Formats: sequence, C-alpha cells, structure tokens
Amino acid sequence: MSAPHHFRSAFVPHDLPEPLAGASQGPLAGLTAAVKDMYDIAGMCTGGGNPDWLAAHRPPLADAAAIRKLLVAGATIIGKTVCDEFFFSVTGANAHYGTPVNPRAPGRLPGGSSSGSAAATAAGACDLALGSDTGGSVRVPAAFCGVYGIRPTHGRIDMAGVMPMAPSFDVPGWFANGPGVFRRVGEVLLEGGGVREKPRQLIILDDAFAEADAEVASSLRAAIAAMASDLPETIHETVAPGGFDPWRESFRIIQAREIWSIYGPFVERHQPKLGAGIRERMAFAATVSERDADMARQEQKRARERICTLVQPGTVLALPTAPCIAPRIDTGAEALESFRVRVMRLTCVAGLSGLPQVTLPVGSISGCPVGLSFIAWHGGDEALLDLAVQLARHVGGVSDPRPK
Amino acid sequence: MSAPHHFRSAFVPHDLPEPLAGASQGPLAGLTAAVKDMYDIAGMCTGGGNPDWLAAHRPPLADAAAIRKLLVAGATIIGKTVCDEFFFSVTGANAHYGTPVNPRAPGRLPGGSSSGSAAATAAGACDLALGSDTGGSVRVPAAFCGVYGIRPTHGRIDMAGVMPMAPSFDVPGWFANGPGVFRRVGEVLLEGGGVREKPRQLIILDDAFAEADAEVASSLRAAIAAMASDLPETIHETVAPGGFDPWRESFRIIQAREIWSIYGPFVERHQPKLGAGIRERMAFAATVSERDADMARQEQKRARERICTLVQPGTVLALPTAPCIAPRIDTGAEALESFRVRVMRLTCVAGLSGLPQVTLPVGSISGCPVGLSFIAWHGGDEALLDLAVQLARHVGGVSDPRPK
Repeated sequence: MSAPHHFRSAFVPHDLPEPLAGASQGPLAGLTAAVKDMYDIAGMCTGGGNPDWLAAHRPPLADAAAIRKLLVAGATIIGKTVCDEFFFSVTGANAHYGTPVNPRAPGRLPGGSSSGSAAATAAGACDLALGSDTGGSVRVPAAFCGVYGIRPTHGRIDMAGVMPMAPSFDVPGWFANGPGVFRRVGEVLLEGGGVREKPRQLIILDDAFAEADAEVASSLRAAIAAMASDLPETIHETVAPGGFDPWRESFRIIQAREIWSIYGPFVERHQPKLGAGIRERMAFAATVSERDADMARQEQKRARERICTLVQPGTVLALPTAPCIAPRIDTGAEALESFRVRVMRLTCVAGLSGLPQVTLPVGSISGCPVGLSFIAWHGGDEALLDLAVQLARHVGGVSDPRPK
Repeated sequence: MSAPHHFRSAFVPHDLPEPLAGASQGPLAGLTAAVKDMYDIAGMCTGGGNPDWLAAHRPPLADAAAIRKLLVAGATIIGKTVCDEFFFSVTGANAHYGTPVNPRAPGRLPGGSSSGSAAATAAGACDLALGSDTGGSVRVPAAFCGVYGIRPTHGRIDMAGVMPMAPSFDVPGWFANGPGVFRRVGEVLLEGGGVREKPRQLIILDDAFAEADAEVASSLRAAIAAMASDLPETIHETVAPGGFDPWRESFRIIQAREIWSIYGPFVERHQPKLGAGIRERMAFAATVSERDADMARQEQKRARERICTLVQPGTVLALPTAPCIAPRIDTGAEALESFRVRVMRLTCVAGLSGLPQVTLPVGSISGCPVGLSFIAWHGGDEALLDLAVQLARHVGGVSDPRPK
C-alpha cells in the first residue's frame, strides 16, 4: 500500500472556495489558520470526516464560537482540514478523503483525529490550526507531525458550533509551528477560569516514561536535561500505581457510550460507510450500556482524584506525548489496535482528569518527530503556554544524527 | 564523520544569558526571534561565526537597527545563532561551533550561512529568525530546512549594526515557519521604497529549472501546478541566454574583492583559524584585484539589465531555490565545491540584480525539504510576501510518499 500522493491532502474536497478574511486589526492579524472539519462555518457543510454525514446535513447558519473569535482576532481561515471519521481514531487515516501526508515523516501516519490540521501546520500551509482533543486528537498528531499542540482544560473553550464526540472529554485545541503564535492563540480562545500560578515543581512520571519505546524515552529525557536551566525543581513519581489500563479502559467505555448516544441514531438510520477501525469501534460503542458507563465513571472519579492530588497549582507533570514515533502508513489493523491501546494509556491522564496538556516538538528519531508533554492544574493553560515559550529555545538542537 | 549531536546546536556558545524581552504591544508582541550572530546586541560580542573575531572585538554599545525594530515591535530575542565564518559559505558547516542540526533532514547540512537561524526556526525554537543574504545565505538554508525565507530588495533594510560581507549584495533577511508571521516581519523591517503592484504574470525560468536535479525540478513543477488557481498568467522564459556561469563568476569575483577589502586586514593581522572551504576562499579573495572586480562589475551590469528588463513591476519569476536537496554532512570538499557552484548559478540572479526573492517550503524528496522561489521587481517585497501568504495554503499536501 503506498501513501496517498496528491496536493492539498490536508484539506477536504468540500473546502472553502476562498479564504475567509479576518479583521484587519487584532492579536492574530495577518496570521492564517486552518480548521478541522468539525467547526461550523456559516453556509458550508460540516463533515466530521465522513461523507455520508456531510451529505445528510444542511449548512450551518452561524460560525462556531472559536471560528468567530479567530476571525475577530484577525486570523484568516484558509481551509477546512481532513480528520478521522467522527474523531474516533488517533491514527489520522481517513478511508474516504485519503490520509493527510505527514510532512515531517513521509510514509508515516500523521496521527489523528485532527490529522489535517496538524499536517497543514507542519507543512507551513498556515500559522496555526484548530483541532479538537477527546482522547489525544490534538496531542498525538502534534507529536507525530512535529508541531506545538494543546489540549486545554476541559470546559475553558466554548464548544458552540463544534461537532461533539464524547462531551465529558471534548475540548477544542490548536496547533502552531512557533511558540509565540502558540501562546497567542490561547489569549484569544481561552475563556475565564484560568488559575495563574508559576510552576514550582516538575514531576517526571516514571510510569508514563516506562510505557514509551526506549528510544523515545531517552530522547525525551535528553530534552528535559537540555531544558534544565528553565525548569523548576524536578522530582520523579508514579501517577497510576495500579497501572494505566484500568484508567484507559474506563476512558474507552465512557467515550464509547457518549459517542453512541450522539451518533448512534445517525449510524442506525443512515448506515454510513465507515472506514476500518472506526466501523469496529462504532459497533462496539453500540454495545456499551449506561450501567457499563456508570461503573467506568467510578473509575474515572478515582483516577481524577489521584491525578488532581498530584497536580496542585504550581505543579506540572512531564510525560511522553505518545509512546512511539508515527507508525508507517501500511501498518496492519492488529498492530494499529495495539498502537491505539498504548497511546491511550498516556493520553487518558489528561482526558479523565480534564487537566490541560501541551506537547512540544523537542526532537526526532530517525527523522520522525517526538513530542514532550506537560500537564498542569485545572486552569493552568496559561502557565503551560508560558512554559512552552520559555522552553522552546532549547529545542533547537534536539535531534538525532542518522542520515535519511 | 558523524553529525554533531548536542543540544541547542543552533545557538552560539556565547549566547545571551537570557532572552531579551520586546515591547508588550506591537505587531510582533509575544513572538520569539533568534538572530544570526552578525547583528549587534548591545553589550554582547558579535562573532560572525569565527571565535578569533569574537575574541578580538569589544561588545557593541548599541543594538543593530533591525534588532531594535524587532524589540520595539514586541518580539523577544531568544538567542544568537551559529553561522558560517564571515558568512562565506552556503553549506552551514562551522568548524568551530559545530554544524547546526538540520531538524527536517537529520544527517544533512542545514545550508548557510544563516544556518542556525534556519535550523532554530525549523525546530520550532522560535517564531522567526534574522539572517542575512549575500549569495544565498537566507534562501539556501530556508530551502534545506523547510521554512519560509526572504532576501529583500537590496537597500530596503537598514544594515546599521550588522557585520558586512560584500556590501554590493548584502541584505538582512528572515525566516519563519508560518506565512502570516513571515509577512508580518516584513511590515516591521522593510523601509521605504516599496513598489506595490499586483503580480500579473509569472515567468517560469526554464534555464534555472534545467540546473536542478530532475527530482527537484519535477517536485517544484508539481507544486506550481497545485498553486495554479492562485497564480497569474504563466509563461516560460530563459533568463540567462549565455548561461549562468558568466554571471556566477562575476558575482564570485565582486564578492571576493569586497570581503577581502573588509576582512583582509583582520585576517592578515590576526591570522584567525578558518575552517575548510572558508580558508581557501579567503586566500582566493586576497588575490582578486580591483581591476578584476571592475571587469566583473561590467558583467553584473549586463546581467542586471537583462534581469530587470524581464522583471517589470507586475512580473514575478519562478525558479528552484537550490538545485538539490541538502547534501549529507559527510560530503567531501570537492563535492561541496561543485555543490557551491551549482547553488550560486541560481542564487546569483537576485544577488546581481538586487531584486527581492522569497522561498517557500513546498515539499520534500525522500523526506528532505525543497524550496520554490519567486523573484519580484525592485521594491516588490510586499507583493512577494503577499504571494507567499496566498500560495501557502497549497503546500499542505506536497510531499513524497517514501517512508523513512
């Protein structure tokens, strides 16, 4: 199987006929943005990665709140990006539109579900891009495509006009190539609820590092060492004493229950064509009962208590964004499933707790990007963005010497 | 020979102790910038890529004009970047400080002389970076590192406080990861003399494309095809009917004469250690007479007349930024010399004519970036930056599918 090799593959076929110009003044004036095809743009159908959904729905009358904020802040929207169907994957493969090319790791998956937004940013097609993150959909493609990405505190960004996935976990998020632009978008999109505190302690999550491939872990440890002069006091800790799997499983059950409650009726009525992986997960989602979800919510509560006890205001966690570099595009279904399991062990920490997480493009392995993540306290988004700007100057030489 | 594998390798050892904060308001507020170690920063010695020069000079009392403008516009200067010694190379190899890692093509040269600025930008260490361009020193590393880069119209940006190289050709220039940031820096740095005109005609320089490797040429042709909807009427033309070599040679002679007139006295008095390539070129520069330079200036005049006749306001030229992808870091001296000759055939067009040129990161070959260049009329910098923003949305899917 060879990679899709066509132009503008980060963008959907039903893209904007021309860019949507933002205000001439404002904090993002002159910058360009791509947006995941789950944000409403007035008069344009929203696809959510699935052509049958696209065909079955009328164009929205209003822009999503986040789109409006970008436009008012001066950004120009240049296009709508491909994403995984119903946002129900972290690979970035889309059976209908083709898989966006990963510009930093050709022949490998871009990560998903905000695949096209990450790919467009990495390619330099735009200055920033909107995505969304439920179970890793900003963090994973940001890491795989070598750009900055954030999953903000749950509830701090207006979801009006954004297709939901699993509302207990859904957050809008964004990508940027440069640290200053990355932070500036936060100044535009983050609503109230910020808890401003300076990071005083960094906790390196040893159990999260243990989930990563040895090369990834050692590359990220080297990155942390290089950042030492700008890091607070650092300690090591285990976040999930009982292992990540009970947490991951609770996330999986709640997510499945919620996505089915939202898209189940459509799936049953319209029988949309679904790509491999999505199809199986949607079928599984149909089988999850409210009782299953309630039990999972008990586990979520325990996880959240543990995580939030660790992450008091002033404390930041460090962990690998993903346990590996981007899988090759020809990776088989079984390997992709175990990839998904490994990824979700790490991404469920912020997902279940609702805490904010940023990923920084700190290096590469065999030319493929790796991301280092920081999780902060509830409302610590601004502190994370400040930290990203502060640490960015250390990423200049983090790389591996192997020729490609 | 293995690549240098250390952190912050894009930055010099005598770097800023901490970032230099810009104004809190302004068009670049919140953005971060790296600067080539040829721009004066008050109180910090300026190195020009050579430790002996660094040691022999006192710290400047004032910031370079461009540094001041960035700070007043709100950018924070995060560090000083490694460059080729006395800016006298396009490879990016520095024998003293190590060669900055090319974050987009590990194991390959970053291009030079503004190597660290391009590498820092590509790594996401900053939102933008200052470089300078005499014979390709912004354009080549921008292409090799996969970022946006500009050589502005000669004379449109204040060179006060910037180390010269060959004043007939020297211009400050800059790099950015995103198109909007790329343009915004121009709004801050460009002085008067802009000639605002909309591109009405694009001339594809067939003889310039013929200088490029077949894969590079075909990748760039595909990029142009993908951009068709946003390009003006397109024709094909030959810019140098007598071939590029007489032009390149005239550039080489004038450049050598000028660099020797500036750095010759220092080289003779201090006998600085010079890296391979630089040493030979500096020795050659010592042998070039004013008479040689005068004859070369006659050739430059002819070249400029030919080029400027072609590039009337409203006309833009398209050409490969470089004829090849970045050479591997272990490339031998002889191969590097012929690489240099090939590069200069293309870069001398804007160099000799003083016209502005932008390079866009439009794709990759075997995972290594390639750049597409546009040259505009004298004062057409703003039009080129607008064009870059307009065309950027087409770069999202330009890539090759080979796994790495």
